[in-house]
Amino acid sequence: MNDPKPAIETLASLGQKIIQSLRENRYPVLEIPDRRTSNIVYDENSNHYVLGSSRSIRDSSNVKHVKRFAQLTWVASFAKELLQASRTSSLRDLYYSSEAFGVGFSSQSESDRIVTDLECLTGFPRESFGIYPEEHSSIYGEVVMRYTVSGYEGKEIDLTVSPDGLPVGPALMTAEPLESNAEIVLAVESGGMFSRLIETKAWKRFNAVLVQLGGQSPRSTRRLMRNLHVSLGLPVYIFTDGDPWGMHIAKVIISGSANSAHIQDLTIPHAKWIGVTPEDIVQYSLPTEPMSDADLKRLDELSQDVRYSEPEWQNHIQQFKKIRTKAEQQAFSRFGMDYVVDTYLSKKIS
Amino acid sequence: MNDPKPAIETLASLGQKIIQSLRENRYPVLEIPDRRTSNIVYDENSNHYVLGSSRSIRDSSNVKHVKRFAQLTWVASFAKELLQASRTSSLRDLYYSSEAFGVGFSSQSESDRIVTDLECLTGFPRESFGIYPEEHSSIYGEVVMRYTVSGYEGKEIDLTVSPDGLPVGPALMTAEPLESNAEIVLAVESGGMFSRLIETKAWKRFNAVLVQLGGQSPRSTRRLMRNLHVSLGLPVYIFTDGDPWGMHIAKVIISGSANSAHIQDLTIPHAKWIGVTPEDIVQYSLPTEPMSDADLKRLDELSQDVRYSEPEWQNHIQQFKKIRTKAEQQAFSRFGMDYVVDTYLSKKIS
Repeated sequence: MNDPKPAIETLASLGQKIIQSLRENRYPVLEIPDRRTSNIVYDENSNHYVLGSSRSIRDSSNVKHVKRFAQLTWVASFAKELLQASRTSSLRDLYYSSEAFGVGFSSQSESDRIVTDLECLTGFPRESFGIYPEEHSSIYGEVVMRYTVSGYEGKEIDLTVSPDGLPVGPALMTAEPLESNAEIVLAVESGGMFSRLIETKAWKRFNAVLVQLGGQSPRSTRRLMRNLHVSLGLPVYIFTDGDPWGMHIAKVIISGSANSAHIQDLTIPHAKWIGVTPEDIVQYSLPTEPMSDADLKRLDELSQDVRYSEPEWQNHIQQFKKIRTKAEQQAFSRFGMDYVVDTYLSKKIS
Repeated sequence: MNDPKPAIETLASLGQKIIQSLRENRYPVLEIPDRRTSNIVYDENSNHYVLGSSRSIRDSSNVKHVKRFAQLTWVASFAKELLQASRTSSLRDLYYSSEAFGVGFSSQSESDRIVTDLECLTGFPRESFGIYPEEHSSIYGEVVMRYTVSGYEGKEIDLTVSPDGLPVGPALMTAEPLESNAEIVLAVESGGMFSRLIETKAWKRFNAVLVQLGGQSPRSTRRLMRNLHVSLGLPVYIFTDGDPWGMHIAKVIISGSANSAHIQDLTIPHAKWIGVTPEDIVQYSLPTEPMSDADLKRLDELSQDVRYSEPEWQNHIQQFKKIRTKAEQQAFSRFGMDYVVDTYLSKKIS
């Protein structure tokens, strides 16, 4: 992840392969793992989505393929330049940079798709090529990490340095966890809850590294959490709003998403959703809102989803359907500012 | 701002005043500066919106007023508790906390409005009471600040400590700028541009403190920029997308918004919008998109807006109307990754 060499070498050998074909007067052909729904399978052993064995062909002799072929080679060369210059780019910048080269992306969603093609082809996540989305989440806790980005190589940072937390950007995502006094990772959905857990020193009380997910967490944040889990042995707990969307934020961290089926090392199968569960809503008499049609439809979808096949998750779905209400994680404020820490989280984490 | 005493004393004397009335068997009455549109005036001297002299009455003997009166006193007592405990709250948490007290907010927008009432009544911005919205922007640059928040009092932080930047949360907003090697503040609209300016060391080249606005910037960010401007004498430059919305992000930093007319010390009249101007779009042949109906309508509104009365701004509006296209700040990527720094910003800032 941190050493750019393997990624550069993979890109270079991709280029070599194309040049070789041209020298031999053959049209270059690329084989890319197929990521259509029919080729996304849920691996029961590893408990996450993976791609099956089907392959797509990009054949430069086929007029239907040649544009995507050219776009893919451009993205690969852009990625190689980034790596060689120790630079990063947002997906948006990549799209705009392409305009000078006439590779004809009609929108950013098209260039994003080609970036995913490159991920499938090479087996590297785009972050390994220095390509990131714009959104950030935040982190705070007693972990010391060592930066690897240019200009900061070898510098260490204590993740308690700023009481507002630190953004999980390219620099932190590629840093190495060195040591930690923490015993768990506690990921929370909202920024308000994150700030409250810092201020009330809940991180100290629970010996927790706090992560603010900001809704569906960016892949970089999931990777950083996994890194803390694997390198430092910290178990991961996830605290979200009590609704189908919050539950699914947790599920994606645990079991992955179909969109990332081609990326390895992103899931945390042993991570635990601590709430707000529908059972909590009842037990704590939380202030609720009625579920919308969209919420109920989402529950139906999730009940069919292979990731929710275990009885524990089916139970949550049934309970939500029964109570037909939802509650935000802030809802515990009704019992006073400290209740969520002193009572709810204390009980859940112990 | 940093010392909670003046705010606590103001809240306490508000409470005293109410109790005094009750002791004298009178219904308490509060007078609040009126913030209806008719009472928002543009102060040509200070170049920003202020409230006129009209006052609203909250009379607790009036059944129409009594609910808002009670809500206001609850918000005031909540704020006082926050200050006394050196704690902060998001606007959302405040809304949920109210549920335990039966003060009957029907939605967060209602409690937000009462928080604004308290601001008008006391003359303190909600940040002085420890009440913040959830959104954050980021900052990076050679400034040393000293924290004042509980647990970090007196600790200093160098704003280059994290190459991903630091979030402008409650802790940073209440910190004191101590010293800086920087010569300007450069505020940019998007996270992608912010990251690029850090990575390419443009902050060093321009001796700039970089601020990521993330769209319309939260008040806390505007206040921090103003603080750097006033305490350290740094001029402020603003770099946004080239469209009516980007231009208005800059204008609000410069001249304020009607929504904040009751808050002082928030505008930076000498701040400068460097682009992307409509003239830049033409001069640099930037890749553009056609303006939508909403964009054109927005231009019409702005052309009538008193903040845009100077010829320079009217010209920008006319130019936009003429070209009927817009461009994002990322659009310079078409000329290569470094063009925006080496050519565009170099020229604009010098």
